[in-house]
Amino acid sequence: MEGNLNTVAYGLAAIGPGIGLGIMIGQTQAAMARQPEMAGQLRTNMFIGIGFIEVLALLGLVVGYIVPA
Amino acid sequence: MEGNLNTVAYGLAAIGPGIGLGIMIGQTQAAMARQPEMAGQLRTNMFIGIGFIEVLALLGLVVGYIVPA
Amino acid sequence: MEGNLNTVAYGLAAIGPGIGLGIMIGQTQAAMARQPEMAGQLRTNMFIGIGFIEVLALLGLVVGYIVPA
Amino acid sequence: MEGNLNTVAYGLAAIGPGIGLGIMIGQTQAAMARQPEMAGQLRTNMFIGIGFIEVLALLGLVVGYIVPA
Amino acid sequence: MEGNLNTVAYGLAAIGPGIGLGIMIGQTQAAMARQPEMAGQLRTNMFIGIGFIEVLALLGLVVGYIVPA
Repeated sequence: MEGNLNTVAYGLAAIGPGIGLGIMIGQTQAAMARQPEMAGQLRTNMFIGIGFIEVLALLGLVVGYIVPA
Repeated sequence: MEGNLNTVAYGLAAIGPGIGLGIMIGQTQAAMARQPEMAGQLRTNMFIGIGFIEVLALLGLVVGYIVPA
Repeated sequence: MEGNLNTVAYGLAAIGPGIGLGIMIGQTQAAMARQPEMAGQLRTNMFIGIGFIEVLALLGLVVGYIVPA
Repeated sequence: MEGNLNTVAYGLAAIGPGIGLGIMIGQTQAAMARQPEMAGQLRTNMFIGIGFIEVLALLGLVVGYIVPA
Repeated sequence: MEGNLNTVAYGLAAIGPGIGLGIMIGQTQAAMARQPEMAGQLRTNMFIGIGFIEVLALLGLVVGYIVPA
């Protein structure tokens, strides 16, 4: 068996944000359809949410440099 | 046991986006049926969401090049 | 213990898209029943979604060729 | 097999907050669409929630320094 | 393979509180939008909930000192 355990860490770190982004953007779609005149404000909020959630997965790429050996 | 642990990382990284895309596109369908005149804006938003979610799985393919050994 | 770890990767990669496609196509059915005159547009959208979600599982079959050893 | 088990800890620690942030921000979107005049108060509350949830994942980066060896 | 198994314990301990906080704060947002005049009482309650949920994850940081070796 070859390979690096750090890649498995990224794989695990991508599970949560993958599901979370789906729920969050999906709710944004539902909210936009319900209140079309709020679409701009909801999209702004969506990008704030994407930033905070996506970073959790991207940290999984560089966690090998941060974590103490 | 043969094989490479990096492939398992991709397998894990595909779980979250697989579920997340399903929830997000499903909610888009429900929103479109509710408010047909918002269909264009909802589709634009859907493709933004697909981009941000799908990339998490695709990074799982190349994570072996990025992660420190 | 025999066998190849790359097959486990496909097994894991099929979990998320399996659930996600179910949620997405299920929501499409509900949306079509709610707004029958949108059926054509919803079906088009469904096939776009199937493409983006199904590819995540299919990549799990060939990930052993792509991933760095 | 190479790599550091501490990175796997971060990967696991990112699953929960990733899903939780998605649920929480998604509900905020739905609440904003329902009661647009509460948008400011809901956004304040959202950032409090982001702080408390995100810290659980970020502690996963430094847990190797805290946990007794 | 290097690293400490106690860090994996924290990673697992953070999954539940991460999801739970998201559900709880998300419901608080929905409740505030529904009954704006209850906002103060709901926020007080939210902080009580955050305390009880967050401590479960933080105990994961020090569990190595508590559990008998």
